[in-house]
Amino acid sequence: MGSLFGQFVRVSIFGQSHSEAIGVVVDGLPAGHRIDFDRLQAFMDRRAPGRNSYSTRRREPDVPKFLSGLLDGVTCGAPVCATIDNLDTRSLDYDDIRNIPRPGHADYTAYVKYGGNADWRGGGHFSGRLTAPLCIAGGICLQILEREGIEIGAHIASIADVADVPFDPVRVRAEALDEVKRKGFPVVSDGAGADMIRAVEAARLDGDSLGGVIECAAVGLPPGLGDPMFDGVENRISCIVFGIPAVRGVEFGNGFGAAGLRGSENNDAFLFDGGAVKTRTNNHGGVLGGITSGMPVIFRVAIKPTPSIGREQDSVSLSEGRNARLRVSGRHDPCIVPRAVPCVEAAAGIAILDMVLGWKNGRVELNGN
Amino acid sequence: MGSLFGQFVRVSIFGQSHSEAIGVVVDGLPAGHRIDFDRLQAFMDRRAPGRNSYSTRRREPDVPKFLSGLLDGVTCGAPVCATIDNLDTRSLDYDDIRNIPRPGHADYTAYVKYGGNADWRGGGHFSGRLTAPLCIAGGICLQILEREGIEIGAHIASIADVADVPFDPVRVRAEALDEVKRKGFPVVSDGAGADMIRAVEAARLDGDSLGGVIECAAVGLPPGLGDPMFDGVENRISCIVFGIPAVRGVEFGNGFGAAGLRGSENNDAFLFDGGAVKTRTNNHGGVLGGITSGMPVIFRVAIKPTPSIGREQDSVSLSEGRNARLRVSGRHDPCIVPRAVPCVEAAAGIAILDMVLGWKNGRVELNGN
Amino acid sequence: MGSLFGQFVRVSIFGQSHSEAIGVVVDGLPAGHRIDFDRLQAFMDRRAPGRNSYSTRRREPDVPKFLSGLLDGVTCGAPVCATIDNLDTRSLDYDDIRNIPRPGHADYTAYVKYGGNADWRGGGHFSGRLTAPLCIAGGICLQILEREGIEIGAHIASIADVADVPFDPVRVRAEALDEVKRKGFPVVSDGAGADMIRAVEAARLDGDSLGGVIECAAVGLPPGLGDPMFDGVENRISCIVFGIPAVRGVEFGNGFGAAGLRGSENNDAFLFDGGAVKTRTNNHGGVLGGITSGMPVIFRVAIKPTPSIGREQDSVSLSEGRNARLRVSGRHDPCIVPRAVPCVEAAAGIAILDMVLGWKNGRVELNGN
Amino acid sequence: MGSLFGQFVRVSIFGQSHSEAIGVVVDGLPAGHRIDFDRLQAFMDRRAPGRNSYSTRRREPDVPKFLSGLLDGVTCGAPVCATIDNLDTRSLDYDDIRNIPRPGHADYTAYVKYGGNADWRGGGHFSGRLTAPLCIAGGICLQILEREGIEIGAHIASIADVADVPFDPVRVRAEALDEVKRKGFPVVSDGAGADMIRAVEAARLDGDSLGGVIECAAVGLPPGLGDPMFDGVENRISCIVFGIPAVRGVEFGNGFGAAGLRGSENNDAFLFDGGAVKTRTNNHGGVLGGITSGMPVIFRVAIKPTPSIGREQDSVSLSEGRNARLRVSGRHDPCIVPRAVPCVEAAAGIAILDMVLGWKNGRVELNGN
Repeated sequence: MGSLFGQFVRVSIFGQSHSEAIGVVVDGLPAGHRIDFDRLQAFMDRRAPGRNSYSTRRREPDVPKFLSGLLDGVTCGAPVCATIDNLDTRSLDYDDIRNIPRPGHADYTAYVKYGGNADWRGGGHFSGRLTAPLCIAGGICLQILEREGIEIGAHIASIADVADVPFDPVRVRAEALDEVKRKGFPVVSDGAGADMIRAVEAARLDGDSLGGVIECAAVGLPPGLGDPMFDGVENRISCIVFGIPAVRGVEFGNGFGAAGLRGSENNDAFLFDGGAVKTRTNNHGGVLGGITSGMPVIFRVAIKPTPSIGREQDSVSLSEGRNARLRVSGRHDPCIVPRAVPCVEAAAGIAILDMVLGWKNGRVELNGN
Repeated sequence: MGSLFGQFVRVSIFGQSHSEAIGVVVDGLPAGHRIDFDRLQAFMDRRAPGRNSYSTRRREPDVPKFLSGLLDGVTCGAPVCATIDNLDTRSLDYDDIRNIPRPGHADYTAYVKYGGNADWRGGGHFSGRLTAPLCIAGGICLQILEREGIEIGAHIASIADVADVPFDPVRVRAEALDEVKRKGFPVVSDGAGADMIRAVEAARLDGDSLGGVIECAAVGLPPGLGDPMFDGVENRISCIVFGIPAVRGVEFGNGFGAAGLRGSENNDAFLFDGGAVKTRTNNHGGVLGGITSGMPVIFRVAIKPTPSIGREQDSVSLSEGRNARLRVSGRHDPCIVPRAVPCVEAAAGIAILDMVLGWKNGRVELNGN
Repeated sequence: MGSLFGQFVRVSIFGQSHSEAIGVVVDGLPAGHRIDFDRLQAFMDRRAPGRNSYSTRRREPDVPKFLSGLLDGVTCGAPVCATIDNLDTRSLDYDDIRNIPRPGHADYTAYVKYGGNADWRGGGHFSGRLTAPLCIAGGICLQILEREGIEIGAHIASIADVADVPFDPVRVRAEALDEVKRKGFPVVSDGAGADMIRAVEAARLDGDSLGGVIECAAVGLPPGLGDPMFDGVENRISCIVFGIPAVRGVEFGNGFGAAGLRGSENNDAFLFDGGAVKTRTNNHGGVLGGITSGMPVIFRVAIKPTPSIGREQDSVSLSEGRNARLRVSGRHDPCIVPRAVPCVEAAAGIAILDMVLGWKNGRVELNGN
Repeated sequence: MGSLFGQFVRVSIFGQSHSEAIGVVVDGLPAGHRIDFDRLQAFMDRRAPGRNSYSTRRREPDVPKFLSGLLDGVTCGAPVCATIDNLDTRSLDYDDIRNIPRPGHADYTAYVKYGGNADWRGGGHFSGRLTAPLCIAGGICLQILEREGIEIGAHIASIADVADVPFDPVRVRAEALDEVKRKGFPVVSDGAGADMIRAVEAARLDGDSLGGVIECAAVGLPPGLGDPMFDGVENRISCIVFGIPAVRGVEFGNGFGAAGLRGSENNDAFLFDGGAVKTRTNNHGGVLGGITSGMPVIFRVAIKPTPSIGREQDSVSLSEGRNARLRVSGRHDPCIVPRAVPCVEAAAGIAILDMVLGWKNGRVELNGN
């Protein structure tokens, strides 16, 4: 258990960093949707490693191979399975960590959980590489959502202490999200982006790594998506987003900032705008009681600095039962935040398509159709 | 759908603010656990309204009535159902909001979702009152966990700009958690608590409300709880915690703070301590790769200021299709953070018992036992 | 776990034979449906005990009390909880079985599973009395389905060796189902019914009991309900129907009879009939590949004879670890088949409403309607 | 949705008859189990097509390729994915049925459900070929169960009107099950088997097909497996078994036969036998109240005759909206019952391992072991 998500769109992710292949099964996609493979590949490429100085030098083409679920490139109602072969694996790089767990990684907890049978090579099933199949599933969901007028986009809100310009929570539109997606470095302000790249490079030269925050917006959502209590928008998005390695926190709307405001400051007044009910501000991040209000859904995700760093660190030798020193070799991103941006979009896409497909349950008439 | 949580312990919450009763069904509790009703009532009382100036004046005894699942006060393996009658309901107080949704509440989204059939009285199923059955279920789970040596406790980390002393993430023990629980106002530093109470009183006199942050710790957890990807500790705890109304964000370990650190600062070195593997610091909040490390699990929850305030606010008249002004009458907490503290404990208790019951699946031998 | 069913309509049943109350939570019912309480009570009365010579003399009014989920008798989108108080309990009748398990009952397996904490009084959670809350949930679902033109009805196909006239699998209509429901003894042929009653009475006088078969039909279903493989019509209906105590087998269409036919005899030819695709015969029972064809769904359920009989039987003394003799006292039906008829309808109603609510997921357009 | 099964062992099946590949993801397998690939292949070969006159002439080697979840052939806790390439596909054979649905197949219902986007080639996702990945998953589960002393085996109880000798429901042992598995034609009585083969050959020469009944036994199960109501042994086994195409009915113990007995005949007396509680007879098929009694679990499955027959049949032209005649070409089994035998074992193996892994939840102590 563990690698399954969703009620209507069921996503099942498999693979380890150095297994034969990684992949995903997506069950429940509506039939009749043509997959735009070029756009999907472009989406995958935003996450793919080895493209620049701030990502790992492991190079993987990350081209999904579709095994099922399509007829002439169109979803046919059967589960879609797509795989990516693991090509550029160097298991020898990881020989040390078989015995000496890397600080900040799941090596130790996997060792405890699976009694020594865990696949220790490259982090196994806990590797960030598993976000590639997440992006296949999410990329497909995002295409379907776009046809329904729903667009999801993210940007780097901050890396270390360099902050980007936030999305306008009230007026953000699909065009603004698209503009960021077309950039090589996903920020609103290119100046801030340049500063971030410099900070990452400095950390890399230092044998160190950086974390950051990603902000994500979903626009075009109808009001009424989501369910009360444990199946609300926040529950579902946080549940899938915490499936991305290195995520340490999730907040919606003004999030932790709301804790410091008074009710009179935090409440978003309702008003009619062009015949539709809107809110004047959007501190609520488009969700009230777990259900979309029709305003943009806004959430932010905290990403910790890559735990694999070039410096020697304190750890333990599990076989010898004594403290030990570890220097992590292998190839690692000094900052995974840029590559995590499409992963957050993918996760949000899956969770939101899941809610869209369940949307009408509260009211549809069978024969009224 | 919506009001169900859990894989092994299945919690199903029902009721509306002004329905005949509210309650909960808990399916999957292990048989043979005696419920200490006095302690459960004491736990319920920490959440109950009407006890002091900073909570709503609605007074409810909140005494659970057990309908099933027990034999002589001991769990018998059958689902436990407990209800609380709604006594002190004044539906007339809410007459306005039937038509004019309260800013910051789910009135509008419920109206959209349920096509006008939503129970508008007192927030209906979206009312904070529904945390009472959450506390019944959670209170029982906490008792079972305690017998296994697992203790969960929370405190108010901050209200507005007044901060409490945080738990020591490495050395926090059950005794420290118990000490806070015994206090009328759940803080570590009583001085900070007094300042918080003053701030709440000032907001109340101002016809306004305050938010805050709650910090929760779970100690005594074995390493190896939780599952990878979408069923990790963070996924499950965040999923249930966002079921508490007014929660806007959840973070684990140093959370959003990790985003500003370097890897060399954020990584927690492993070391042997008394024969067991520990970490020197606990920035990871007791969870690596979704799985417990054996260090205390630490998370924080952002609570927004109570949206019901005494001041007149802008809203809309849904029936007349025009903007309108609203003054919320009814009885409301100027700050729900203190009463939310046991709710966070309850939510964590349910999620953690759920993981404990699923814990051995990865390795148990049927006959080896 | 165990007492939960459904993906869209989530039914959670609680209670034991002699607990304070029994009841059900139904989460996911569409909002806006008025419950006809008189019809629901009439439905409950078809299952209720103590009405005639062939049912137990335990008399329970079985009037559901609704605690939540309704506003002025109309579903409001929140979970519906209804309970029935247990009034006429005589736990003393069951003193023996605390130690000496009744053959054919769950006394022994419950004892093994719950380590001696099982509620042994009257069968506890395993009692046939738990079909009363199933009928509350099912009765509501059946009302909603009827408004969509879907009617579900069952009759006694046989008791012992007395057979009723089967439903016409091709031409059965709602009117025929209604006619059976209005009868005190649910059979098509009253002559066969009279023979059945005589057989039951003979068994009763003999201190013995009888089993039988129930046939159920669902008409008015659109083609396309259900999902492939493990979520088809058969999987879901069998899953819920085996939740009724004493069910030993389920078959669809001609069922086990198909095993003896040739393909040329068993295949149902397609034809156009009034512009719609139908089949000439209905050996497939309205389901192909797990998905409804638009023909009536027909299934049969085998019910074993009531295990509680007046005769002395061989059993074991669990406390003394030796063989023992047992004479079951208490009040028992000599044949539960008549009272199980509405239970089968209820179970089918829940499963089918669940599929109806999930029906459009494969194709709905978000903005298209 | 649809192609997922299980709570602890989650099986997700993908593929269509003529897609690139078919396969399965199994999430939740316990870590540390070595897969015996030779035995798995031998198990797959029992299902594989093209081996003799009574199965389709489509020849597929059906050799699973493992993509993930193993380290040196041992389960590592990560999801196992295995695929089988589709090699010998002749889509042209199916050109007719794109428009003219085959009687007794899911062609029409898939067409209705997926709005014309269904993969019509060879039955698509509804093809019997999808039982190959079921057998991969089931074959692994059966190996794990065997190490726990649990053995599952099936035989052909009947084809048309030729009946095999049934398993002894009280005394059946692993050795008897193994003996049947080693035979080319899975029956207890080879004489009956020879008669069945003759009957199938006669039907084949006639351009027709035959159905039958499969009986399955599981021995070595501890008492206490399964959960009440909707998660009992019968619910789960029937739910997965109806996922095998052509299954029309499932019965446990004496099943439909119980309907004709009196309670005094049907009840199984308890007795002590070598210190353990047993039953003298086993009409209950090893399950009481949904929970195993420790006696062999026995169930039977009705298989309809292969709907694809050589004779011309009546159907409809969906594009032209008129009745039409259809002669099914392609390569089909005149009787799938022999090849369905390992599929039933596989399905039972998955369902039972799922229950075994959930077995201790009702009572384990966290620190106790």
